[in-house]
Amino acid sequence: MEQSFVAWAKMRARRLPQVKLGIGDDAAILQGSTDDWVVTTDTLMDGVHFISSEVSAERIGRKLVSVNLSDLAAMAAEPVAVFLNLCLPRSASQQVAADIYEGVCQVAERYQIALAGGDTNCWDGPLVLGLTAIGRTVDGLAWVRSGAQPGDAIVVTGPLGGSILGKHLDFEPRIELARLIRDKIAIHAAMDISDGLSTDLLRMCDASHCGAVLDLADIPVTEQAQQLATTSGKTAVEHALGDGEDFELLLAVAESDLQKLTELIGQSQCHRVGTFTSRTGLWAREGSRIRQLPVTGYVHH
Amino acid sequence: MEQSFVAWAKMRARRLPQVKLGIGDDAAILQGSTDDWVVTTDTLMDGVHFISSEVSAERIGRKLVSVNLSDLAAMAAEPVAVFLNLCLPRSASQQVAADIYEGVCQVAERYQIALAGGDTNCWDGPLVLGLTAIGRTVDGLAWVRSGAQPGDAIVVTGPLGGSILGKHLDFEPRIELARLIRDKIAIHAAMDISDGLSTDLLRMCDASHCGAVLDLADIPVTEQAQQLATTSGKTAVEHALGDGEDFELLLAVAESDLQKLTELIGQSQCHRVGTFTSRTGLWAREGSRIRQLPVTGYVHH
Repeated sequence: MEQSFVAWAKMRARRLPQVKLGIGDDAAILQGSTDDWVVTTDTLMDGVHFISSEVSAERIGRKLVSVNLSDLAAMAAEPVAVFLNLCLPRSASQQVAADIYEGVCQVAERYQIALAGGDTNCWDGPLVLGLTAIGRTVDGLAWVRSGAQPGDAIVVTGPLGGSILGKHLDFEPRIELARLIRDKIAIHAAMDISDGLSTDLLRMCDASHCGAVLDLADIPVTEQAQQLATTSGKTAVEHALGDGEDFELLLAVAESDLQKLTELIGQSQCHRVGTFTSRTGLWAREGSRIRQLPVTGYVHH
Repeated sequence: MEQSFVAWAKMRARRLPQVKLGIGDDAAILQGSTDDWVVTTDTLMDGVHFISSEVSAERIGRKLVSVNLSDLAAMAAEPVAVFLNLCLPRSASQQVAADIYEGVCQVAERYQIALAGGDTNCWDGPLVLGLTAIGRTVDGLAWVRSGAQPGDAIVVTGPLGGSILGKHLDFEPRIELARLIRDKIAIHAAMDISDGLSTDLLRMCDASHCGAVLDLADIPVTEQAQQLATTSGKTAVEHALGDGEDFELLLAVAESDLQKLTELIGQSQCHRVGTFTSRTGLWAREGSRIRQLPVTGYVHH
């Protein structure tokens, strides 16, 4: 339902001048008097996004903040505060709430963000955690996903795939990287890779009215993707293309800025994986062959 | 759990300069460059806050926004945007989501607020709706609950009690009233009455380090409170003191400003119900007798 609902909601919601960017990007941008405010929100539900009997409450709390900070990083926003909503099963001990809270505070403190409010309710249903993260733009700058131009290099900030083996719970939202890049390099478009490279890249292409050719051999794959490939029947690159929850940044940057970006953030964080094109759709180059790429990422239902 | 958890969370959360007011008031205040930002969030859960089989989804959507706007009104903040998080039962039709959305948009549009984002997830659990409302202060002014002074008049903006008969779903958040008052009268303390007058007044007293004497005969009661009193074994005034979800404003205002406030908003919206005192605790005056008042409002468990 997610995508069709987003499309519908986008249409239904009235446009008002105080919203510079509404439904459809990693976060919304609200107009401020000097700097703007950037807002994102995400929900994690027991049985959908995690299995509470298999993961510690503290780790879930950490993931909840990190997922939202990843969205703020994708907008180059400076995080300010988070708000936590908890639906706690009556059967859960008060310790579960305290552990979630502890996880949230740990990540918040690492990035000097305040937990500034929220609400806590008990009920007979499963554990639900909601978090809203608020950031601000710095010098009026926000990265959006709609600015990629044909000829731009496609960059990812780390190896992809296999996050299900652990990284999906313990990852570093790219806040520091966004801080490092934002005032030095003109980023044409940015988003975080949450639903798999192929799905998210196609979203960036659609928003930017262009297409993309991926150089499959250049896509950095994780050890975990390689490990999965030994038994999954898929190649490691297929895992890198299709697995979700990498939480690396996907960037569109002018070819002429690529060298500067590499020097700034280092080769280990700057992987050029292809080129945006005027021809729409998603394409893969292997050697001299170019073929259309099936989109294999996670699509919410 | 709510109150003890709030106290604990308030202690655990690190204080950071970007948060002017954190956990514990109707909303949080984040420091902006000129005006500040005011953020509040609330969750409504099927079986806890409503029974989905008994109330239309559209009405639940309207309540969700109104509850949060009531918190912004209590801070005298100008609402800017709302963010909606939905956990939808798989068994629910897409129409349920559309109806909730419709209710949210109706109220948002009435106050010229944008629905600027959120997320929607399906699961096997019951319906959960979360909403975060963001406002901004006007001319740097925000009402908080901690400024009541001994001698101040206690004012409520409408009759209380019996909201369970319908008003708890269909009420007007006091946004317009806050707009009218905020630049004309010095309000010493404000909050919205969500858990019953006696509970919320005591919270204001605690935050303001003072006490209060209520003139029971002056408390305006709704027809619904009178109706309940015919069968509940409680008086209408007891309903007005103890019933939750009135969503009227509770204000502390200097005795010398009371006349001006009455002229500004009219007698039907300005009910003086007592006086703040230096002696702590909650007291009731009936004729010439003063007795300590039991706190009967709704306390979250």
